[in-house]
Amino acid sequence: MSKVDAKLAERGLVLPAPLQLPEGMVLPFPEVNLRGTRAFISGTGPLNPDGSVAGPFGKVGTDVTVEEAAHLARLTGLAMIAGLKRTLGDLDRVSGWVHAFGMVNCAPEFSQQPTVINGFSNLILDVFGPEIGQHARSAVGMSSLPMQIAVEIEAEVEVRV
Amino acid sequence: MSKVDAKLAERGLVLPAPLQLPEGMVLPFPEVNLRGTRAFISGTGPLNPDGSVAGPFGKVGTDVTVEEAAHLARLTGLAMIAGLKRTLGDLDRVSGWVHAFGMVNCAPEFSQQPTVINGFSNLILDVFGPEIGQHARSAVGMSSLPMQIAVEIEAEVEVRV
Amino acid sequence: MSKVDAKLAERGLVLPAPLQLPEGMVLPFPEVNLRGTRAFISGTGPLNPDGSVAGPFGKVGTDVTVEEAAHLARLTGLAMIAGLKRTLGDLDRVSGWVHAFGMVNCAPEFSQQPTVINGFSNLILDVFGPEIGQHARSAVGMSSLPMQIAVEIEAEVEVRV
Repeated sequence: MSKVDAKLAERGLVLPAPLQLPEGMVLPFPEVNLRGTRAFISGTGPLNPDGSVAGPFGKVGTDVTVEEAAHLARLTGLAMIAGLKRTLGDLDRVSGWVHAFGMVNCAPEFSQQPTVINGFSNLILDVFGPEIGQHARSAVGMSSLPMQIAVEIEAEVEVRV
Repeated sequence: MSKVDAKLAERGLVLPAPLQLPEGMVLPFPEVNLRGTRAFISGTGPLNPDGSVAGPFGKVGTDVTVEEAAHLARLTGLAMIAGLKRTLGDLDRVSGWVHAFGMVNCAPEFSQQPTVINGFSNLILDVFGPEIGQHARSAVGMSSLPMQIAVEIEAEVEVRV
Repeated sequence: MSKVDAKLAERGLVLPAPLQLPEGMVLPFPEVNLRGTRAFISGTGPLNPDGSVAGPFGKVGTDVTVEEAAHLARLTGLAMIAGLKRTLGDLDRVSGWVHAFGMVNCAPEFSQQPTVINGFSNLILDVFGPEIGQHARSAVGMSSLPMQIAVEIEAEVEVRV
């Protein structure tokens, strides 16, 4: 068992199944694009354990509370880790998180994007540790996101070949 | 003739002329920034063959239909390929698409960004093939874009030196 | 004194102190994440010389003029350079700017994002010179930004080890 898998088990965290695409939706790209020692995680939303898209849906600050959204960001992180595991086989191949771009579906007056995306960052730091897990980050407000998910995150990590 | 040029010719696809900047607009950066084996394509919008910015303009879902926007995303892809060709000389130097960030100018309730940006992804996969053309992707909603273009995409590709 | 520091002094430009976080705000990530020869600058906003977040705040085009916003983009650039200096020690270690993503907090009808982010690009090109300072760029409209700052920019640079 990899160190990362051991940490996930210790925390009682379960990685979700692959995204169950809504009927008629086609995504002609991989969840993770591995190019040499760099792995790019496509924009990912929160998933339930069975791979269905997780709600609540809509705008953070009006339809979704900040606390709910931070939990959705944490679920998004678990979905990203699940995608990495399917692509890399062994999560201990991740040698360093590089960058994450955290997108919050919100109204124009919302300004607590960092608190929302901390749900993701705190998970990554906890599971991968402070050195490998360290990442540059932005957390910003989008006018809308696919399927009206409340949070979407994309990221780059470095991996051992 | 490069393989990519041959594929473009086979499809009857024409790469547009360089962007004709609107009067008074200054963009102090290149369309593609080549750093070693990595080429970064600046945020690009849809162009007509003569390099003028292509409409329809405004918000997808209200001013622009999803079908029109997917076509604009395809035109954006052609403009990006044109920029790569001017920078690299030979499009077969592209060894792998890495990542694309697809931005849709839309209203807060719009949620079909993936369908729009598929117009870009399907072009890249068709012209470069499924291995070199494979890219990580996000497709998200922006509150507004320069000149009220409906679609803007930026991307990174890996190239042979 | 590094060449970049000399240029800053020549222009009378002062790098701001580190960001003074508003009470209760936690950002669990570094201002710059250095991974090998690549340095990723986290999403950064405009700072006053003492490190407090610089206004005016709100939407560009309604609450903030284009000229004010371009100045805020310039202040954001200075904050990013300050972060690089704290991380790298010597700013002449920057061998090339790679990419910048410029985000403007604005209303749906705003379309002058490039003019705003030119405040950043012109600073970088002036201080680092046209070769090292050259960067790919996007300049786009966000529905909102943390703390209702008017401008936020993230970037990647290449560095000598």
